[in-house]
Amino acid sequence: MAKNVIVGQSGGPTAVINSSLAGVYKTAKDLGADKVYGMRHGIQGFLEKNIVDMDEKIKTDLDLELLKRTPSAFLGSCRFKLPEASDNKELYDKIFNILREYDICAFFYIGGNDSMDTIKKLSDYAKEINSNIRFMGVPKTIDNDLAVTDHTPGFGSAAKYIASATKELIRDGLVYDFKQVTIIEIMGRNAGWLTGAAALAKCEDCEGVDLLYLPELPFDMDDFMDRIGKLIEDKGNVVVAVSEGIKTKDDKYVFELGEHTEFVDSFGHKQLSGTARFLADAVAAKYGVKTRPVELSTLQRCAGHLTSRVDITEAYQVGGSAVKAAFEGETGKMIILKRVSSDPYICTTDIYDVHEIANVEKKVPLEWIINDGTYVSEQLVNYIRPLIQAELTPVMIMGQPRHIVVDLV
Amino acid sequence: MAKNVIVGQSGGPTAVINSSLAGVYKTAKDLGADKVYGMRHGIQGFLEKNIVDMDEKIKTDLDLELLKRTPSAFLGSCRFKLPEASDNKELYDKIFNILREYDICAFFYIGGNDSMDTIKKLSDYAKEINSNIRFMGVPKTIDNDLAVTDHTPGFGSAAKYIASATKELIRDGLVYDFKQVTIIEIMGRNAGWLTGAAALAKCEDCEGVDLLYLPELPFDMDDFMDRIGKLIEDKGNVVVAVSEGIKTKDDKYVFELGEHTEFVDSFGHKQLSGTARFLADAVAAKYGVKTRPVELSTLQRCAGHLTSRVDITEAYQVGGSAVKAAFEGETGKMIILKRVSSDPYICTTDIYDVHEIANVEKKVPLEWIINDGTYVSEQLVNYIRPLIQAELTPVMIMGQPRHIVVDLV
Repeated sequence: MAKNVIVGQSGGPTAVINSSLAGVYKTAKDLGADKVYGMRHGIQGFLEKNIVDMDEKIKTDLDLELLKRTPSAFLGSCRFKLPEASDNKELYDKIFNILREYDICAFFYIGGNDSMDTIKKLSDYAKEINSNIRFMGVPKTIDNDLAVTDHTPGFGSAAKYIASATKELIRDGLVYDFKQVTIIEIMGRNAGWLTGAAALAKCEDCEGVDLLYLPELPFDMDDFMDRIGKLIEDKGNVVVAVSEGIKTKDDKYVFELGEHTEFVDSFGHKQLSGTARFLADAVAAKYGVKTRPVELSTLQRCAGHLTSRVDITEAYQVGGSAVKAAFEGETGKMIILKRVSSDPYICTTDIYDVHEIANVEKKVPLEWIINDGTYVSEQLVNYIRPLIQAELTPVMIMGQPRHIVVDLV
Repeated sequence: MAKNVIVGQSGGPTAVINSSLAGVYKTAKDLGADKVYGMRHGIQGFLEKNIVDMDEKIKTDLDLELLKRTPSAFLGSCRFKLPEASDNKELYDKIFNILREYDICAFFYIGGNDSMDTIKKLSDYAKEINSNIRFMGVPKTIDNDLAVTDHTPGFGSAAKYIASATKELIRDGLVYDFKQVTIIEIMGRNAGWLTGAAALAKCEDCEGVDLLYLPELPFDMDDFMDRIGKLIEDKGNVVVAVSEGIKTKDDKYVFELGEHTEFVDSFGHKQLSGTARFLADAVAAKYGVKTRPVELSTLQRCAGHLTSRVDITEAYQVGGSAVKAAFEGETGKMIILKRVSSDPYICTTDIYDVHEIANVEKKVPLEWIINDGTYVSEQLVNYIRPLIQAELTPVMIMGQPRHIVVDLV
């Protein structure tokens, strides 16, 4: 049996998802893989045999290094949930026929909750049909909402970007001698890890944000307005960080309280955005102060110009570990990160049954949310801090980050 | 006469305005200044004698280096337009009394158009009353709209941030296999220099933005929608950069075309924002594709984590040159940057009569705007490119950029 492997990327991109791809590629080659195939746009492209030979894309060490430092999914991504095998056996047969056609012994999927569901279903089906193709999950998501693993690659860099951008926005707000309220809107539909990262802006040279609202607890508009009123009186420059996904206690998104039209994207997900704008308008209307809504927007997940070296290294490691485990016979597992110690930070990888991980959402523990839901505890800060440490500077060419060229068809 | 000097910062902050402050401080000390005073919040704080001794803030070379690499105005800023001396002689007398009280021989003001107006008026008044106090302007603005000088410190770093962020956003948009339109909104009320910088995203590894709209020309909504329609047909991932200040031919801001409430800030300036959102909504409604409005927002002026080394060095130089010129007897002048050559890039400083600079707005030459107002020429790209070269990494502590502490009262 040829030692060919295939790898795909799925779900939202991150700044370090290609570092995991590099880890899969490099380790597979080192361990004697003949071909390392990449599927374009995840399982969706795979079904159309949109498959590339990674050797044609990565010819030199420089290519590999550029790939590591290039944000967003090099192979493209998809959001595609496999149906149950019992509901669509043809689809599964098609998948396994393609795998046989390419003589694949191991299948790697870099992604989050939905992607682990794909690994679960494919490895279960392989067992059912007595296929010995191995299916391994490689964790990835800026949202940090995967179960079992201490944290997810992608989160550290997003957290570093958020913490640093928040510091800079606070600094910018100090400039004028008048009262001003800045509302920073941060990604994270259901889990507040990323919004919590804004708490790291507080350090010796920065007083940090004044209020932090995570989606784990209902948002109380009246209480918020009262607190803002007091803060405006006490100090000039008020800065608040809110998750895009905060909801009132009757389960309505805060941005839905406004007049703003509602958008539903092509996956049927409501586009969450406008929370900062809505809150800023409300504050301006009530208190007559200058307000600034700031959406950190897509940049928080794709800012390859400010990545965490810890994160990009771990992303590489989980890719490599997945290959090693598959070649040792593992299947239906995801690589997890196990924190041995926070200070000094020591973290290893392990493997874990993907059935316990797929479709589970890990949220910020409620005991880490303090001050009546308006701030986060030191535990959360201490949990995140090691993950944003050190930098891996992009390869800078002509004053801009250089990325590996996408010439995939 | 004691050799005391005073320096202030005014107008919108930039990522390198403190490098100019560092240049003024260092050169003044080197050239034998006794005291270097800083005025808090520009001339407005000065009038309240909110004045600090910079020696108390800068004690070591590390302090000076941290100051250089700290974004936003360390001394605070203001937007305060001096009345004419003939309209308010008392105010001018008050200013000169304070200057005498602190035994000031030279006054430096780091800022843009309005700040140069302050230098003009104060130097004229000094002449009128036979004062030999010198008044020198130090150029600063991300908008690059100051006359005579080749470019302004602050612009290069903002341009670098915009070009790099745009590259990353384009990359992020390539990930999915469906049609999508991203609209990036960029600062620049009347001048399109910053929006033009988005054109630099185009390079070997990036196809660049598809359309660019500057405020120098009227925006035609119907033509825009037609072009977008064609682009959506031709390619999957469309990216457009627009200035926040684009207007229709009947002089209405584009964002005013929407339902969005209009905001007027505390200076009576309309808050320009919502252009990208308005256009994205219009595209989504007409073509039924996913759209992403992205406001680069305040970060484009305060992202100290991604500055241009050329820019931060020139910002330092113009600060130093202003001191040198004042100590040589110059007054009523601004330091300008003179480009000797673009490739290789060589640039020197010179001094120029502030009367020719104050209140003049330099816009992008219309012949540099091409394709019926939807793109910019290579001349503009070649003009900007040298200004974004090389980096000056922030001092990174605990995974985040470290700034000099603001403990000014």
